[in-house]
Amino acid sequence: MQQKMTLGQLQAFLAEHFAQVADDFTILEAAPMRLTLRYHTDERHIRPGGTISGPAMFTVADVAVYLAILTMVGPRLLAVTTSCAIDFMRKPAAGRDLIAETRLLKLGRALAVGDVLIFSEGAEPPVARASLTYAIPPD
Amino acid sequence: MQQKMTLGQLQAFLAEHFAQVADDFTILEAAPMRLTLRYHTDERHIRPGGTISGPAMFTVADVAVYLAILTMVGPRLLAVTTSCAIDFMRKPAAGRDLIAETRLLKLGRALAVGDVLIFSEGAEPPVARASLTYAIPPD
Amino acid sequence: MQQKMTLGQLQAFLAEHFAQVADDFTILEAAPMRLTLRYHTDERHIRPGGTISGPAMFTVADVAVYLAILTMVGPRLLAVTTSCAIDFMRKPAAGRDLIAETRLLKLGRALAVGDVLIFSEGAEPPVARASLTYAIPPD
Amino acid sequence: MQQKMTLGQLQAFLAEHFAQVADDFTILEAAPMRLTLRYHTDERHIRPGGTISGPAMFTVADVAVYLAILTMVGPRLLAVTTSCAIDFMRKPAAGRDLIAETRLLKLGRALAVGDVLIFSEGAEPPVARASLTYAIPPD
Repeated sequence: MQQKMTLGQLQAFLAEHFAQVADDFTILEAAPMRLTLRYHTDERHIRPGGTISGPAMFTVADVAVYLAILTMVGPRLLAVTTSCAIDFMRKPAAGRDLIAETRLLKLGRALAVGDVLIFSEGAEPPVARASLTYAIPPD
Repeated sequence: MQQKMTLGQLQAFLAEHFAQVADDFTILEAAPMRLTLRYHTDERHIRPGGTISGPAMFTVADVAVYLAILTMVGPRLLAVTTSCAIDFMRKPAAGRDLIAETRLLKLGRALAVGDVLIFSEGAEPPVARASLTYAIPPD
Repeated sequence: MQQKMTLGQLQAFLAEHFAQVADDFTILEAAPMRLTLRYHTDERHIRPGGTISGPAMFTVADVAVYLAILTMVGPRLLAVTTSCAIDFMRKPAAGRDLIAETRLLKLGRALAVGDVLIFSEGAEPPVARASLTYAIPPD
Repeated sequence: MQQKMTLGQLQAFLAEHFAQVADDFTILEAAPMRLTLRYHTDERHIRPGGTISGPAMFTVADVAVYLAILTMVGPRLLAVTTSCAIDFMRKPAAGRDLIAETRLLKLGRALAVGDVLIFSEGAEPPVARASLTYAIPPD
């Protein structure tokens, strides 16, 4: 399949429609069926023990799969997550950004499935993995 | 099993250790193996289509199970979520709080499992369901 | 919503369309949005340590939600599971049947979500919990 | 980490301890943190619409992660699945074997996490994905 939005178009789409959170994210790569996203963490995300909150990890996985879908189908404001399964495997370090690498495993007319590995910047093994299903509204 | 923390103790624990988010939550009920939590949503949580963000729903489920565990085992700052599966079933209305009703299905020495129904305040059918596993550190 | 198939009709549907497994299951109760199913376990399902296999627990959850959906929408041979999240919490005893209690949390036109508690017959706390999503084909 | 069991030792372990199902599986590759498993499907696994049952897909994912763990930690009869999340994305063809490719994402002292892509033999895109957590008993 062909890519319908470029990295720059995706970043602009975020800024326009998700203004309250767009600055937290930098798209590092947008390719057919694959996308890499950086989440700029800050004090709001730090939790006891010097780690990053679970909701922050959920957030970056959710946004990464959303953007990976838009890359392929074009701007669909109302695509919604219908389910997510996430495993938290290691503690990400406080003070480091999260990097989400996602690939789309299925891109049907109505449903898409993506899986995600989440990394704490600069560390090797992934801190979490997630899989998400999105319902895609008609164009 | 016997309850080890009261609703008031849980709310104070949140305020002391999770100061940056404690005001967002009100514990409505804390009973053996069951807890009900209100998440005060605001503009940060609103998303296109007049709904509440997925991360907000994940957050209330995560905090509700955490508090349900503390209710039974006492204050354990370092209990961590190891996995979560969540289904988003209906769109919660923007401008309404989220209410999470959780019950613990397993409370072992090392692992606890809770499930959660999430409601949009004032509406009948649940907007989401979630199940979470926590690893409980030794006392 | 109104129930479209009775317990007897469901059991006959199983026998007709799933002949190779129908004898393994007895529907104990079929009510609006709720269903209880017994899985007759035997030597094939026993695993080291005197317990029942994980696939057996998955199977009873999957069939229970399927039948709960048919109860409400009528016979749909081609309804398919799109996702399942299951937590194995305790070891079911070898030599005892599994009992699945399911309720439908969502019954949309295209997707249904059910959750399930699985019990080892005669024991109190559930041995597993599961949630499943089904895609429902048009009538 | 170093591999503790070879492909031949794993296959022999299956035959000795899981005699009732061992013949259904052929280990195709066992490498550090990775394993590929073939599930020989037959008439028992066929479902309406000419496809393979969901429980068969769950089974191959479960066994593949179990064997991937044994590859790294040696024979542990009592390692148990604590949770599984599985997405069924396409219908596998009846009459074709299932191939599961698994990698271990975490191998801790007490918990291991693996993810799995399941293929219908001879077809390109995966038919399902799964992630499983196992509890590993002390040696």
